[in-house]
Amino acid sequence: MDIRKRSLEKHYEWRGKISIASSVEVKDMEALALAYTPGVAEPCLEIQKDIEKSYELTRRWNTVAVVTDGTAILGLGDIGPEAGMPVMEGKCLLFHEFAGIDAVPICIKSKDVDEIVRTVELISGSFGGINLEDISAPRCFEVERRLKEVCDIPVFHDDQHGTAIIAGAAVRNALRVVGKKLGEARIVINGAGSAGIAIGRLIMAAGATDVVFVDRFGAICDGDPTLTGEHVKIAKESNPRRLRGSLADVIRGSDVFIGVSAPGVLKPEMVRSMAEDPVIFAIANPTPEIMPDEAKAAGAAVVGTGRSDFPNQINNVLAFPGVFRGALDCRASDITEDMKLAASSALAALVADDELSAEYILPTPFDPRVVPAVSKAVADAARKAGIAKK
Amino acid sequence: MDIRKRSLEKHYEWRGKISIASSVEVKDMEALALAYTPGVAEPCLEIQKDIEKSYELTRRWNTVAVVTDGTAILGLGDIGPEAGMPVMEGKCLLFHEFAGIDAVPICIKSKDVDEIVRTVELISGSFGGINLEDISAPRCFEVERRLKEVCDIPVFHDDQHGTAIIAGAAVRNALRVVGKKLGEARIVINGAGSAGIAIGRLIMAAGATDVVFVDRFGAICDGDPTLTGEHVKIAKESNPRRLRGSLADVIRGSDVFIGVSAPGVLKPEMVRSMAEDPVIFAIANPTPEIMPDEAKAAGAAVVGTGRSDFPNQINNVLAFPGVFRGALDCRASDITEDMKLAASSALAALVADDELSAEYILPTPFDPRVVPAVSKAVADAARKAGIAKK
Repeated sequence: MDIRKRSLEKHYEWRGKISIASSVEVKDMEALALAYTPGVAEPCLEIQKDIEKSYELTRRWNTVAVVTDGTAILGLGDIGPEAGMPVMEGKCLLFHEFAGIDAVPICIKSKDVDEIVRTVELISGSFGGINLEDISAPRCFEVERRLKEVCDIPVFHDDQHGTAIIAGAAVRNALRVVGKKLGEARIVINGAGSAGIAIGRLIMAAGATDVVFVDRFGAICDGDPTLTGEHVKIAKESNPRRLRGSLADVIRGSDVFIGVSAPGVLKPEMVRSMAEDPVIFAIANPTPEIMPDEAKAAGAAVVGTGRSDFPNQINNVLAFPGVFRGALDCRASDITEDMKLAASSALAALVADDELSAEYILPTPFDPRVVPAVSKAVADAARKAGIAKK
Repeated sequence: MDIRKRSLEKHYEWRGKISIASSVEVKDMEALALAYTPGVAEPCLEIQKDIEKSYELTRRWNTVAVVTDGTAILGLGDIGPEAGMPVMEGKCLLFHEFAGIDAVPICIKSKDVDEIVRTVELISGSFGGINLEDISAPRCFEVERRLKEVCDIPVFHDDQHGTAIIAGAAVRNALRVVGKKLGEARIVINGAGSAGIAIGRLIMAAGATDVVFVDRFGAICDGDPTLTGEHVKIAKESNPRRLRGSLADVIRGSDVFIGVSAPGVLKPEMVRSMAEDPVIFAIANPTPEIMPDEAKAAGAAVVGTGRSDFPNQINNVLAFPGVFRGALDCRASDITEDMKLAASSALAALVADDELSAEYILPTPFDPRVVPAVSKAVADAARKAGIAKK
């Protein structure tokens, strides 16, 4: 049976993928008096004197809110906040299963940026971190930017940065396989939505100097008067050779293709026009920009997709659990670019030189070394930047 | 050691009284694909077609948000939202321990009624019910009233109505003990804050015809130009004999005293001035309006307090778990007065005639019959009123 139909059956069976667990038994009046009134007055007063104590006296130290407005749920688009809840609950399940994090799904019944920001800000005192999920571009940029300003806890839009962290690790290791340097590689990113832009920015922060964004209107180039919003900004940050034209035009001679766009848009002849040993990450899900066997037949040296039925899966589960585990463990006030770069490096480093190959450039989601390695790297980077309280 | 110091020690040890539990194991790629992408797209689409399916395909059917703004935490007052979290977490623990409800603590960093209402409304799609907690009067009345209007899930301010449900059951059973009728009893409620008002309204809905509210300025009487806000309203609903004056004045000849006020305000001579076999509920916590032995020495026939170290404890744990269990079980859209009355009756009925005595008028919090009886009564009332979907 189709995986989606089986999933629906399972969801009816499960009636929810997470629940609450009591950490304390309450079987007699003494337990009530200690966990609740009158005893609980004392921890309240401690926190009133010092808000930081909320991280020691409640579960806040380990709790993340997974927040959506329902406007970009998976590949389904704007299906509404309640309809996004199975994804949010699933995300919370994965936070718990992979990193022992207590995650709570919150769907917000508004698409207004001001309302979304204000709502999350107002509930942030209950949480140790905020994971934004499936909020459509371009509003997601402003929502995240503003929340990072007003919240004193880490705020992270996984669709942007989780994808970027893993794509960054994948590019790093693929270039190791083909013997090229990141700083010299010509990189084309097809799709200039929230994920594509975040990927491009992170690999540039990692040292890439020649990144070109392409969307369905063509290459994004500084000076193009038709650009709007975030594209105006990224045009100034990228495309040093000022390439114009379609994907077919700009991909010529490039070393790396990263697709966060649509099925089938990368043609074999485009792959053949790339430099020697081209690297292809066709992440559009469920149907990639090109199928791996087609890409290889056209000369691709390393191929990755978002799918689990092919090697080199760009699976967000490789990032968000460890990133938040690290941020929570050191009580970081933010998730900075350095922390994301550290996560990306740590992920790449998990593939040793003698294991690295065209078919194995990333650890798999269930590799037990991933969360410890990523969380340590993230916490170390936070401490180094002086934004960690522990 | 002092219970509060021991509680603080325990809170440092526990580091949170609730956590998340996974209902689904995620140990391989197939599990990921069923609980998360790509399988999860299907339950999302089901909910998009019919929002009611969110109650079957996610944990919403069993989840309640426990919401405060930190302005009336226990008897500590306005200590702030983060400082209220140990209480909210404790409440969530009790929801789970007593009624198997998944409850999530949410503190809101605003005292503005509009913001509180809008925030809760916007996050309500993630929950099956809202329990408002420790929000100061008079704002709590407006917050609850407006949320009941805009939310399609039950909204219940426990400080008001939980207390009222239990006080109502206590009054009912105490009058059984002394052989008086509710409709003929003269009842004085000292304290006209949110709890006092809710108690008065519920026992009037149950049939009481002679209820007088008294606060520190005296008896609340219709026509008094110094009254403001909610007091203007309750003045029209109560005090049929238009009594004026202090507590000492109006308590003369009355049958029942209910105190939700301050320590020591009920003097022995006031008890002596009451009718024969007076009933005293001195619920101020931790120090009641009069100590039970003093009240009995002054002639009280039945005495109850908010404390666990005396008989007849008015303990809110007797109401909120069963009330929400019932509302969630039948998927009621609201918690109505009939449902509260039903809860109150069911609680009272758990004390059989041959068990009923001056020292035993209410079940104890750990009586396993409480939640099933209260939840059944609440669900039946909801179905009868046509506001239950199951």
